[in-house]
Amino acid sequence: MLIHLSSWPEIDARLKQTKTVIIPIGSNEQHGPTGLLGTDWMCPEIIAHAAEKADESIVVAPTFNIGMAQHHLAFPGTISLRPSTFMSAITDWVSSLSRHGFEKIYFLNGHGGNVATIEATFSEIYAEWSFVGEHPDFALKLRNWWDLPGVTSLCNRLFPTGHGSHATPSEIAVTQAAYPDRIKTADYAPKIAPNGPIRDALDYRARFPDGRIGSDPAQASPEKGQEIIDLSAAALIRDLAEFSAEVRP
Amino acid sequence: MLIHLSSWPEIDARLKQTKTVIIPIGSNEQHGPTGLLGTDWMCPEIIAHAAEKADESIVVAPTFNIGMAQHHLAFPGTISLRPSTFMSAITDWVSSLSRHGFEKIYFLNGHGGNVATIEATFSEIYAEWSFVGEHPDFALKLRNWWDLPGVTSLCNRLFPTGHGSHATPSEIAVTQAAYPDRIKTADYAPKIAPNGPIRDALDYRARFPDGRIGSDPAQASPEKGQEIIDLSAAALIRDLAEFSAEVRP
Amino acid sequence: MLIHLSSWPEIDARLKQTKTVIIPIGSNEQHGPTGLLGTDWMCPEIIAHAAEKADESIVVAPTFNIGMAQHHLAFPGTISLRPSTFMSAITDWVSSLSRHGFEKIYFLNGHGGNVATIEATFSEIYAEWSFVGEHPDFALKLRNWWDLPGVTSLCNRLFPTGHGSHATPSEIAVTQAAYPDRIKTADYAPKIAPNGPIRDALDYRARFPDGRIGSDPAQASPEKGQEIIDLSAAALIRDLAEFSAEVRP
Amino acid sequence: MLIHLSSWPEIDARLKQTKTVIIPIGSNEQHGPTGLLGTDWMCPEIIAHAAEKADESIVVAPTFNIGMAQHHLAFPGTISLRPSTFMSAITDWVSSLSRHGFEKIYFLNGHGGNVATIEATFSEIYAEWSFVGEHPDFALKLRNWWDLPGVTSLCNRLFPTGHGSHATPSEIAVTQAAYPDRIKTADYAPKIAPNGPIRDALDYRARFPDGRIGSDPAQASPEKGQEIIDLSAAALIRDLAEFSAEVRP
Amino acid sequence: MLIHLSSWPEIDARLKQTKTVIIPIGSNEQHGPTGLLGTDWMCPEIIAHAAEKADESIVVAPTFNIGMAQHHLAFPGTISLRPSTFMSAITDWVSSLSRHGFEKIYFLNGHGGNVATIEATFSEIYAEWSFVGEHPDFALKLRNWWDLPGVTSLCNRLFPTGHGSHATPSEIAVTQAAYPDRIKTADYAPKIAPNGPIRDALDYRARFPDGRIGSDPAQASPEKGQEIIDLSAAALIRDLAEFSAEVRP
Amino acid sequence: MLIHLSSWPEIDARLKQTKTVIIPIGSNEQHGPTGLLGTDWMCPEIIAHAAEKADESIVVAPTFNIGMAQHHLAFPGTISLRPSTFMSAITDWVSSLSRHGFEKIYFLNGHGGNVATIEATFSEIYAEWSFVGEHPDFALKLRNWWDLPGVTSLCNRLFPTGHGSHATPSEIAVTQAAYPDRIKTADYAPKIAPNGPIRDALDYRARFPDGRIGSDPAQASPEKGQEIIDLSAAALIRDLAEFSAEVRP
Repeated sequence: MLIHLSSWPEIDARLKQTKTVIIPIGSNEQHGPTGLLGTDWMCPEIIAHAAEKADESIVVAPTFNIGMAQHHLAFPGTISLRPSTFMSAITDWVSSLSRHGFEKIYFLNGHGGNVATIEATFSEIYAEWSFVGEHPDFALKLRNWWDLPGVTSLCNRLFPTGHGSHATPSEIAVTQAAYPDRIKTADYAPKIAPNGPIRDALDYRARFPDGRIGSDPAQASPEKGQEIIDLSAAALIRDLAEFSAEVRP
Repeated sequence: MLIHLSSWPEIDARLKQTKTVIIPIGSNEQHGPTGLLGTDWMCPEIIAHAAEKADESIVVAPTFNIGMAQHHLAFPGTISLRPSTFMSAITDWVSSLSRHGFEKIYFLNGHGGNVATIEATFSEIYAEWSFVGEHPDFALKLRNWWDLPGVTSLCNRLFPTGHGSHATPSEIAVTQAAYPDRIKTADYAPKIAPNGPIRDALDYRARFPDGRIGSDPAQASPEKGQEIIDLSAAALIRDLAEFSAEVRP
Repeated sequence: MLIHLSSWPEIDARLKQTKTVIIPIGSNEQHGPTGLLGTDWMCPEIIAHAAEKADESIVVAPTFNIGMAQHHLAFPGTISLRPSTFMSAITDWVSSLSRHGFEKIYFLNGHGGNVATIEATFSEIYAEWSFVGEHPDFALKLRNWWDLPGVTSLCNRLFPTGHGSHATPSEIAVTQAAYPDRIKTADYAPKIAPNGPIRDALDYRARFPDGRIGSDPAQASPEKGQEIIDLSAAALIRDLAEFSAEVRP
Repeated sequence: MLIHLSSWPEIDARLKQTKTVIIPIGSNEQHGPTGLLGTDWMCPEIIAHAAEKADESIVVAPTFNIGMAQHHLAFPGTISLRPSTFMSAITDWVSSLSRHGFEKIYFLNGHGGNVATIEATFSEIYAEWSFVGEHPDFALKLRNWWDLPGVTSLCNRLFPTGHGSHATPSEIAVTQAAYPDRIKTADYAPKIAPNGPIRDALDYRARFPDGRIGSDPAQASPEKGQEIIDLSAAALIRDLAEFSAEVRP
Repeated sequence: MLIHLSSWPEIDARLKQTKTVIIPIGSNEQHGPTGLLGTDWMCPEIIAHAAEKADESIVVAPTFNIGMAQHHLAFPGTISLRPSTFMSAITDWVSSLSRHGFEKIYFLNGHGGNVATIEATFSEIYAEWSFVGEHPDFALKLRNWWDLPGVTSLCNRLFPTGHGSHATPSEIAVTQAAYPDRIKTADYAPKIAPNGPIRDALDYRARFPDGRIGSDPAQASPEKGQEIIDLSAAALIRDLAEFSAEVRP
Repeated sequence: MLIHLSSWPEIDARLKQTKTVIIPIGSNEQHGPTGLLGTDWMCPEIIAHAAEKADESIVVAPTFNIGMAQHHLAFPGTISLRPSTFMSAITDWVSSLSRHGFEKIYFLNGHGGNVATIEATFSEIYAEWSFVGEHPDFALKLRNWWDLPGVTSLCNRLFPTGHGSHATPSEIAVTQAAYPDRIKTADYAPKIAPNGPIRDALDYRARFPDGRIGSDPAQASPEKGQEIIDLSAAALIRDLAEFSAEVRP
């Protein structure tokens, strides 16, 4: 059940069956010479929608498509929230969804650069309850799609070298499977991009001139992408079930 | 050119031709017994993408899908930002896009409840420049899709009575055209919903029990929706051209 | 009853009779070559005080004299709050007055540039209640003085051409009636000022070199001003009565 | 020269002669059984306007009429800003006035409870420059009207006992001189109000049941008030001259 | 009982005996050619720890070591919070300690420049309760260590001239007693530093080239410092007892 | 060189030799039945001071002693900042230190719960530069002391089982070495504490009744602590040297 394609009475009815909702969350940022700017929010959206297709009882919120990408701002097309803005926005999403009775709010994340801010936001939200000694009405969970059980193993098997950490063949492959008419090619030089620390945008562009970090995205293919999507969607369904079943200690 | 389906070198190249970008912006909120929760962000997305299909040189940002919908929070599925959060987020989008050289930033809006906050945000952004007496690097424009030249006339002609102001047959029709497999029906009672002031969420639900304001969405059809989309997309292309051509006084 | 000229026991007693309070709200900003910088906060103050003189049971708060005027900052004497500051301040006024038991808080506004931010603030305030599903203790209403029933018709009759939207002959006339010893004159060139979009301060000054928008304030006179005040005050009394009589749905 | 009763060209011309502006600042809060709620903002306004009447070259901004009065909120009619809001608003006033070229911004304060927040705001404003090692474009000065040279001595002479610190006979007298038709009387019990620490609103009302602290306002008279106004206005003119003459070290 | 050297069960047990906690609070900022940068946070720490040594039942929180020192930022080693940050941090300390049941929270302050912001913060904290008409769970008290009964008299007796207000011989002496191996010397020129207003950092450094204000720290000695510590610690114990014994009115 | 025990001319002179500063940062929070509440800020302080003792050229800032510990608030003595406050405070520390010319700012962290917020803060700080396309004046580095090269290996060797993740024998041992007179004992039940997710404070206390996570702190000893300190301090010196030597790409 995709919230944005449902009516409110449908969500109302569905809330009698489940208290769990999944939010695909990512970033709109450069992904090297060939990667789509939307890669990081489209990957979790693709996987979550695939899971929902397999099990229509899963409730999926609209995709949170802009995250924390300040380090990519020297590349055109990148859109970033400041962490403080990101925190306020996540907080309002949680307030809205918990207002309706969702008690398990699951963020399926597609961008490593989001992790710190999302976790800090969870603490900011919990702190309101912790300061007054009350139980929050909900539990929050963050899961990167590549950390779903089995996914990293698959990616390592598919791409034993040149996986890297940004504009990876895994994520490129996922978007190729979903948007086959948007596959782009380039002569990557070097074949495998360099590694290094992540700081501000100019520093980033100087270290990683074409945007990639440690990756060789030429290895991606739609077939491999589909394999990743299938495994991820299945793992997501199990992960959601486990989260839904958790009881407060 | 849809930013999220492009690579950064493609945007980089495109910025040599144009300095204008369009952001579809809306809200995820109840739209009566049959309207899709995503109606208000999908309508400007549908229209902007239709315009881009007709003229691929138009640059379209990802859709800003959550806006100011506090008054709808008593209906499940609604997600709202507080106005202050909304302001911060819009500011960051503008900072990101102007960072890349976009000088004309055009918000195509799908939700009346967003207007006040978007305009307040424009003032907040401009104020930074006004306080120091400098020219901003960009101009901002807000346009509701139904205010595009000719669109309201068409809607009035298609729906002479029962158009109303929330869950209108116009917006329902637009989504029906784009998502024909998601058309829903209901027995509306009353046929035409009541009118009244908009305050907080409980007040809203008490005044407008099924969520509609002044509308009879049963009049919507995919055909009428397509007619609205076609006219809106054409008007949008002209409106963008005019905005692009503006020079600083 | 003007709050600032009353003692707290007087307000305490009055709260047993009424739960309604009016806040004159405006801006301190340039009003063309001859208009007073205080025009936009003095107009609602003049009208509200005239209403209170006619009906002493009306409770009038001190005047909120600085609003959102960033676009006028290129003209000396203008003082502006950022929208975000304006929102915080309005929120605190509302919290204070509702704390005392005022349940109907009516803002009589004198500045078009304030409207978006005041409405966004109302949403920000209501959102706190909407997120937790509770009824606020109060209802908020915004009314521009020129939108009081009958006032715009009168202004159009008095000034059929050259009314414009900033430094209008209507508002100049109102201040002339109240401050006859502060009437100023100038040779306006052009007679009727130009129109155009409103952006940042430098842009504004380039488009509207003497500050006026679309207006010919030479038409103002104290007599016309008094006529506007009389009509507005009477309309205000009726509007307040109607607002006071509203019951929660 | 009162800004709100001037036109922008008048302020523009005046800025060629002086770079100093005075802001009367106070609070709207209970002042015991007989004191006017506006006392704390009307006193500095009365004195500043008296000074301007004596020397029309003095530039006086509109009155900042709502300050930090949280401790008085248990008494109807009190309106308070949170300190954080107060800080933002003062900052925007300063940004606006310095934007026009005012280099000496003088706050004539009428409320002891404002002092800490105004001083904290000055530090907040200066900090922006201190962190980057630049000179601000302006100097800020806070002066309570009763701290103008000679004023406290006069007040002590006029009211050797029962002056107290809130709803003092001095401030009541000043408002009596300016608003003789608003003089109110009461049987004060006890004659001289108690003293004690200031905390939250309920604590305040429990300690100071009728609102006064340490004062016997029955001693006030319009004649004494006029004497205070005359001395204060003359001292203010000298104090402003001294501040205007200061040069950066 | 020093909180940071205790375990939580020890604090838990102690809370059954007392509801009072002391927070040493200061600043890390230049203290002239010879003063330690930590002077202003080490002085209240030294005195509070001395008091705790004399009476182990006193509960002392960790030291709040960075305060409001924007005016000292032109001298290396100074670390300052903006007042707004300082307010948020103090608020969180109070929320944490009151959460555990501390009802009397006593700030022993070592920096004059902190006073305005700490007092503004108290008002910010109380305001939350005042706006809703509830009693806070705690009372807050600010005491500068030199304002403890008898301390200023002693300092005046020890240093009849050249005490000044920054880098005073009193505070230097206190740190000399506690850190005798960190005593530094210099040829002060002039012997007694000048006085003047405090504004931004560059202004400060121009007025007070070596950092001192009005002081001759050469008079300090460890012996005098010990005398001040002993008196202050004893006075602190009595002051805490008095604060602990206060009951809500 | 400890900043707080130095004078500003000493720091001024030192800045001619180095541009690197280290900030010990941690948290004040419960550490099980026997751990000191200050453990997490004392450990990095102990290690940084040990490194400075070995190499006096290292510049160490005062200890940032309160961090993000909302989940521990159900245990008395814990003091936590909200993440948003923590971010503002870190930002001000960085602004202060970079103002003096420090170009490499190294946070030696002692609390796992701080990591997300510190990293989010780095992004918030960098974002200011990234949005305008400028190079920041500094580089920031976060290092948990247990992640210094070799330290985790040592801890695993010393405590092959029951190391856990909160109130670990490693950190307890470090504080035992530094504060041998504050060693506390208890009968731990169970010997090794349970594991689980971290959410709000009540949830935490229900899952981890005595505060420990996965650890058996009874294994700690001052000797083992000293061994950890020695290795950590040596590793820190090398890590700092490497960071200092980094050049902008």
